[in-house]
Amino acid sequence: MRLEFTKGHGTGNDFVVLDDPDGEVPLTSRLVAALCDRRFGVGGDGVLRVLRATEPGAQWFMDYWNSDGSLSEMCGNGVRVFARYLLEAGHVTGDGPIPIATRTGLRTAYPEGPGFRVDMGAPRLLGTSKATVAGVTYDGLGVSMGNPHLVCPVDSVAPLDLTRSPEFDAGLFPDGVNVEFAEVVDADHVRMRVYERGSGETLSCGTGVCAVAVAHLHSAGRDTGQVTVDVPGGRLVATLDERTCWLAGPALLVAHGFVDTDALRFL
Amino acid sequence: MRLEFTKGHGTGNDFVVLDDPDGEVPLTSRLVAALCDRRFGVGGDGVLRVLRATEPGAQWFMDYWNSDGSLSEMCGNGVRVFARYLLEAGHVTGDGPIPIATRTGLRTAYPEGPGFRVDMGAPRLLGTSKATVAGVTYDGLGVSMGNPHLVCPVDSVAPLDLTRSPEFDAGLFPDGVNVEFAEVVDADHVRMRVYERGSGETLSCGTGVCAVAVAHLHSAGRDTGQVTVDVPGGRLVATLDERTCWLAGPALLVAHGFVDTDALRFL
Repeated sequence: MRLEFTKGHGTGNDFVVLDDPDGEVPLTSRLVAALCDRRFGVGGDGVLRVLRATEPGAQWFMDYWNSDGSLSEMCGNGVRVFARYLLEAGHVTGDGPIPIATRTGLRTAYPEGPGFRVDMGAPRLLGTSKATVAGVTYDGLGVSMGNPHLVCPVDSVAPLDLTRSPEFDAGLFPDGVNVEFAEVVDADHVRMRVYERGSGETLSCGTGVCAVAVAHLHSAGRDTGQVTVDVPGGRLVATLDERTCWLAGPALLVAHGFVDTDALRFL
Repeated sequence: MRLEFTKGHGTGNDFVVLDDPDGEVPLTSRLVAALCDRRFGVGGDGVLRVLRATEPGAQWFMDYWNSDGSLSEMCGNGVRVFARYLLEAGHVTGDGPIPIATRTGLRTAYPEGPGFRVDMGAPRLLGTSKATVAGVTYDGLGVSMGNPHLVCPVDSVAPLDLTRSPEFDAGLFPDGVNVEFAEVVDADHVRMRVYERGSGETLSCGTGVCAVAVAHLHSAGRDTGQVTVDVPGGRLVATLDERTCWLAGPALLVAHGFVDTDALRFL
């Protein structure tokens, strides 16, 4: 099967975009994993399928899959890449806000500079917990951005070994959790690294950046404010107001083409 | 600039193929590195540019670049992917041998099963040397396959940490060296892992497989024979006769498309 794809990324969090308005591509976990394989496939942290929305409020639904073939509720960098794709493909026109349906509800992308500002929805604090990496246990704050995060403050993110999944409390996070490690640069600036469930360490995680901003402000007794967050793949800005968390950052489409699914490696 | 590309691999050693018969693409080290970036670009262990050959003996020249933008003499998996590309693009026709000019001389690819058997040229023994990984020093045998290799026998390849370049004798290998670690399965079967100069650990290295077969036979006092070599990305067969080393294995093209070079990240 010849499958058309677009490759794009937001701060190095990269995606295989499949334009499939009517859901005609027989997408399975195995096909997603084969497409996302970086040497035997196209390569990506996940697949973004562009489906026509079935609920009111948005024309398009972001059908997001992790690189291991599991489904995910939402992806903060993915939603900007998705918005960029909708514009470039002509699925939406103009420079106004772009409503996007996701598994965790409606998200809206506002064109801004070289990227988009996205209403990521209100965070929800989940209480404290712990994560263990390479035998060291870190205190963390659980934050839900629709998907679950555990933000662990550290002195420095540089020496962490994130080649394996951190251990966490499976009672509190029965569906797994994305674990962020956050190093304070100054009062409104944080450096982070992230281990995403289903993907491993990635260069960036948009909902993780929001969670880190929430936890950073929370530690200073604040529940609104703006935080610049440096991830390995670039820079994002999270702004918390009384209603929601905004995430601003770039989104680029790099390549377009066809993949021969018969040539993929299915595990 | 819109640049047409094909993505292919041989046993997981993957390449961005650029079809550029007349050398019109302004290929530079920075562009190669940006294309090969797995998250900000297309992704690959190297670039194979298809150039019209200028010397007699072959119609096509394999202009091979490592993923870091450095030039390389030859690539044993790349040459099969190159041959597959020449056939699929219609640059050569029929099912006969395909001569390919490379920086290390003429190579010939013979269609065989799901891939090609390639005359990789005669190996040359370079004498013994040592490589050090994570504080442990291993004895090795230097083998030139046009490019330099150092083959180190180990009890097991599984536990090796190849996230950093092995240390080696820069006096013997002034241009660097590809370091192979070889675990004997039986008399004609070896398991290997490789750290390629300019690319890091890869799932496979064709000339490395030849070098491993040469060293394996040499250790049994033989200079001809056939050795099956399992690499992380699959299986290859190296056959040493009185004249040359043959390497047989698969070659697949996975995707075709265009990359927008303005969207790439140049470091």
